[in-house]
Formats: sequence, C-alpha cells, structure tokens
Amino acid sequence: MTTPQSTPGASQIVPVELGARSYQIRIQAGLLPLLGQDLAARFKFSRVLVVSDQHIGPLHGGTLATSLHRAGVPGEIFLLPPGEGAKSWEVCGSLYGVCFQQGLDRGSALIALGGGVIGDLTGFVAATYMRGIDFVQVPTTLLAMVDASVGGKTAIDHPQSKNGIGAFHQPRAVYIDTDALGTLPARELRAGLAEVLKYGVLEDAAFFEWLEANLAKLLARDGAALAYAIRRSCEIKAAIVGQDERESEGGRRALLNYGHTFAHALESCTNYQSYLHGEAVAVGMVLAGQLAARRGLWSKAEAERVEALISKAGLPVKLRKDDPPPEDLHAATFRDKKTRGGKLRFVLATRLGATEVFKDVPADEALKVWQDAPRG
Amino acid sequence: MTTPQSTPGASQIVPVELGARSYQIRIQAGLLPLLGQDLAARFKFSRVLVVSDQHIGPLHGGTLATSLHRAGVPGEIFLLPPGEGAKSWEVCGSLYGVCFQQGLDRGSALIALGGGVIGDLTGFVAATYMRGIDFVQVPTTLLAMVDASVGGKTAIDHPQSKNGIGAFHQPRAVYIDTDALGTLPARELRAGLAEVLKYGVLEDAAFFEWLEANLAKLLARDGAALAYAIRRSCEIKAAIVGQDERESEGGRRALLNYGHTFAHALESCTNYQSYLHGEAVAVGMVLAGQLAARRGLWSKAEAERVEALISKAGLPVKLRKDDPPPEDLHAATFRDKKTRGGKLRFVLATRLGATEVFKDVPADEALKVWQDAPRG
Repeated sequence: MTTPQSTPGASQIVPVELGARSYQIRIQAGLLPLLGQDLAARFKFSRVLVVSDQHIGPLHGGTLATSLHRAGVPGEIFLLPPGEGAKSWEVCGSLYGVCFQQGLDRGSALIALGGGVIGDLTGFVAATYMRGIDFVQVPTTLLAMVDASVGGKTAIDHPQSKNGIGAFHQPRAVYIDTDALGTLPARELRAGLAEVLKYGVLEDAAFFEWLEANLAKLLARDGAALAYAIRRSCEIKAAIVGQDERESEGGRRALLNYGHTFAHALESCTNYQSYLHGEAVAVGMVLAGQLAARRGLWSKAEAERVEALISKAGLPVKLRKDDPPPEDLHAATFRDKKTRGGKLRFVLATRLGATEVFKDVPADEALKVWQDAPRG
Repeated sequence: MTTPQSTPGASQIVPVELGARSYQIRIQAGLLPLLGQDLAARFKFSRVLVVSDQHIGPLHGGTLATSLHRAGVPGEIFLLPPGEGAKSWEVCGSLYGVCFQQGLDRGSALIALGGGVIGDLTGFVAATYMRGIDFVQVPTTLLAMVDASVGGKTAIDHPQSKNGIGAFHQPRAVYIDTDALGTLPARELRAGLAEVLKYGVLEDAAFFEWLEANLAKLLARDGAALAYAIRRSCEIKAAIVGQDERESEGGRRALLNYGHTFAHALESCTNYQSYLHGEAVAVGMVLAGQLAARRGLWSKAEAERVEALISKAGLPVKLRKDDPPPEDLHAATFRDKKTRGGKLRFVLATRLGATEVFKDVPADEALKVWQDAPRG
C-alpha cells in the first residue's frame, strides 16, 4: 500500500486522459486564492461568469472573485438559490439569460463554484450556450470533488426524470481546494465518503484497506488524508472514464454505478427529501452486497466487511422505518435511466475491488432484497 | 465537369466521415416508403418518436408512419405547431415531456421529419434527452437537405439569440426523398437554392458552372438535376465538416458561413419576419461580393457573375425599401455568434470557388457596404 504523499499546501495533479478533451485536476489546500493566476496563465478566456449559490457564494465567492480580479480575468459572479431546485428548466433558462446579458462569447468560460447541483447545471449551460463554451469546476463538497469533477456528466432535472436532460461536456480544468471542506456540514462530509468507499469496493482493495485504517482521520478532516482520498478517488474514476467516456453499451463506465441502481430507486421514492445522494448510495451498496452474496457471487464475509466500514463512517446501512413499501421501491428500480427494454442491470462485486455488470438478475430476486432489507 | 448520374428512383449515398460519428446520407426519389425497412435493417432502435409539424405531418407523416409500422419499428408521431416558434424554450420543454411519456430510453431514436426548424429542435432534444440518444433526419425542404443534413448543428432559440442554445450532435443517418420537394412552395425552393449556389462560390467553380447551365431545370424541379445539386452540396459540406467538426478557432468550417454575417444581421434586424433564411443569405452573398471587390480581393466581374445567377434564381439581390437603416444593420453585424472580442469576421471570396476568413475588415468599411447597398 502506498502512503499518502500530500501534506497540506502541496499541490497534486490528477490528469484525466480523454484525447483532445484531456484536462487536469489540481488538488491543494489553499488553492482558491491562487486560482485566478493559474487560469490567466493557462487559458485566455475573454470573460468568465462564476456560478455559485447563496450558501457557497458568501463563504468562498469573495476569495475567488478577488483572485480573478487580481489576475486580470474579467467577469462577474452570479448566485443561484441553494438546493436541487436550481437544476430546474426555469432556473436553467434564466442562467442562459445572464450569460447573454454578460456578453459571454465563444471564447468565454463558466466557472462552477459549489456542490454537485451547481456543477451539473453550470456544466449543462456551458455545454449548450452557443453550442458549447469552456467550463471550469471548483467543487466545494467532498461528493462533487470525487464524483462530478471527473467524467463530464452535466444535467438538469425534468419533472419526470432527475438528471433527465443533460450532456457530456468535459471541463477545461478542475480546482479542488481541500480547505473548502472545513466549512462543509458533517452530514455532507459523510455522504461524500460513501462515494469514496465505493471506489475502493469497485476497483481497488488496497485503497479500501487504507480507508479502513484512516477513516478516523478522514472524519476528523485531516488535510493530508482527505487530499489522498480525493486524489485516489479521482484517479480511479479517471482511469475508468478514460476507457469509456460516453458510457457506451457494455462499457466499463457502468461500474461507477455500483450501489446506484438501488440508490436511485430509494431517492426517487422518497422524493429526494430524506436521503442525501451519498446516504442513498451507502444503503445501495449494502443492498448490492446482499444481492451479490445471495446469488453466491461474493463472500458474505467481504460484503459484511464493507457494510461495517459504511456503518463506521456514520452512514445508513438500513432503510428507514417510514420508507415506502418494498413493492414501491422495486417498481422504482425499473425506472432507472440505465434500464433498457425493461431489463434490470446491477453492478455487483465478485470480490473486494472487482465488480461486474449483471443483466440476468431475476426481478423477484431484486424484490426479495428490498423485502429483506432491515429497517430502523 | 462531371454530369449528374442520378435518374429519379436511383439511390445515391454521400458518406459523412467523422470517425466514430460517421454516417450516410441517402438520396433517392420515392425513399420515404422504404425508410422503415432500411432503419430496421441497419439499427435496432427500441422505439422511435417521429417529430414533425402540422404542415409537413399531414403531407408525409402517414407514409413514414406506415413504413415504420410495416417494418416493425415501434413508435409514434408527434406534431408541433409550424414555424420558428417551435424552436422556443417552452416547446422544447414540452418535447422532452413527450419523450418521457413515450418511454423512450437510451436505445431509442428521434426522427426529424420536416425543415430546418424541426431538424434543429429535434436534434437538440436528441442531443440532451438522457444525455443524448440517436437521431435520424428526414429533411423535406431543399434548405434542410443541403444544409442541416450535414454537420450536426442543433439548436433552439433564446429570446436574446437565435440558435443561442444548442449542441453538436451528429445524426445516425439522413434520408432525403427528393419527391418531398414536389410539395415545397416555390419561394422555399428558391431559398434552398441560395445555399446550393453558396457551395459553388465557396468551394467549387465547376459546380457553379453546372448550376449556371442547369438553373432552369432546378427551378422546374427536375428530379435528376435536384438530386445531383443536393448530392454535390452535401459532398462539399461533408468534406469541410470532416476537417473541422466543431467549428474550431481558425478552422475551415467557418467558410460555410459565406454570406452569413450580413444575412444574420439582416434577419435579426427584421425580426426574422421578412426574409426567409435563404433569401437573407442571397443578399448576404451579394454584399460579401461587393465587400471583397471593394477591398480588391476579388474581381468585380466574378462578383457580378455570382450576383447574376442569384438574381436569375429569383432571389433578392437588394435590400428592401423598408429595411432598417444601414447603421442598425451594421450594429447587428457585431452581435453575430461568431464575433469574438468585438472583432468582425467575414468570409470573402478571392476567386470563384475559393474563400477565406478575414478578420481585418475595418468597421467603417462594413458600414459602407450597408450604406451603399441598393434598395428596391
């Protein structure tokens, strides 16, 4: 096992190799004040628009704006209302209006400063404003750092489908300032850890072991530990996305949905109100482990080892008492975007660090998992 | 000069070479009734949605629907209100709703049956529904056949910018049934010819000569002549797009905008009400010829030769008496999407069949072209 090489303040670069669309993720404590200078040196944007929300903007918007201003990068900051509601058709429409008012042209860029909602919406507008302009991500939540910063998925919601409208649009650069995690609510930090644990389970047993050994440090927001966990997560995701940028049929990118088939059903059935995405993924990984063990694909001992770490991270491993009945959750499983021709698909582990897509899970067996899931 | 090889009923294929996104344009009289069979043989779409409008749907929708039904391709047809209004944010939003209601998944396809408005809107929805599904074009106007069927530009309008929101999304296949031109209003046929003439001027003097010799046949809707003009136009556009798919800075694709800088200004200043796009392009080509001759780049004789053919095609070569004043038209020229950093760009001919992008045209010289343009 390699040990983390970062100390707070040191800069780490994760390259995301996608041919002409390659870019770098820079991870560093105290990066935000340096961002303007770096942008100005590497890109010649005619103008930028920083998109953030009314929670994040007051915390970090000033630092970023000052940094851009000092570096001579012209632009403004625009604050959206906080929450998933910002990914609506209406808010999206108004953001285009701001872009036109600000005079953004094809040489301009949008900068997303915030969590996944801000990144998804801003990325989608960048993908479609004048048929696509540049876009830079500055994620401020752990979830956005380890998930949205790699892969180029952008989206807004449709009343009939969360993330139902979207595009693949790679950022030109991603800047991760681990100091931003200092102001992140504890519940959101844990939710982000769910995706970090996912990378260990799906691709890298050694990383999973490192997470077992360093969980306390991560929960205590140790800068070096967080920087390493983020870097390794981004590396794993970048390697998979590099092999299958557009999530092709039968491609490796589907593996990133480990735990997500159950999670999406749980989130949609509870109207995205009771679980944070990472919390639903935590439950989804537990259920995926139970399904894999039940099918004899995976050892019960390893599935339980994963469940134990999820639990130790303060994440849910059971459904809630007042969650919808199993039949409703099961029906929602079929409405996932990955469903094709009404067939269920599950990513299941065969050992720690190895996962595969299974298309042959009988519907009644998936139902059984929902029925047997403990509640409390 | 090669002579047209098509006779009505013969099938011609224009390959569009774009790596993994390559596709074929099939041109044939009487193609619509054969389309379902061809689609079923080449693709395995889980479901299709045909998008058309209340003008085109009643003319050709039944033939296409029957053809799909006979070939066992499941799907429905959806009719939009006719006109540019269908490219609005609101109509676009409602089309996503239809896609979800119809249960389209990532293995499904949208089929655009109609002119440029239908193709642009349907293509944009296909580009962004579930982050992109397949899309097939069945253009029914000459303009859409020679312009929209190559290049993958899709878009909707924003109140502040026509085509201001869009994406590059290549179709999986394009089917051109020249019989559909039989029901096209004469004014629209001529407007389509403007773009055909453009290809001759910008890239192929021999094709321009052929157009001079065959204009009467084209205006009389001779099937073989139309099929050849469409094929050659698609070939020229495909060759340029193949070298520069995403209209990169300094790339060849900009040449396709010959006449368009003036045309866009004229269209936007007249609120897209008085000129069809092809008519504005006709005037724009005349003005581009005058600017090139004025700057000593192009011989006056050749510029006038082009103007003569445009006029002979029944297309406008002058501004209208009631068009806005030159100063307004000039100001609108600066609002073009291709403008970067406030600099004007013009595609100008240096000889028949050869064009270049010029970024050094002084603003007052462009204004002079507007001022000197004859009206009547």
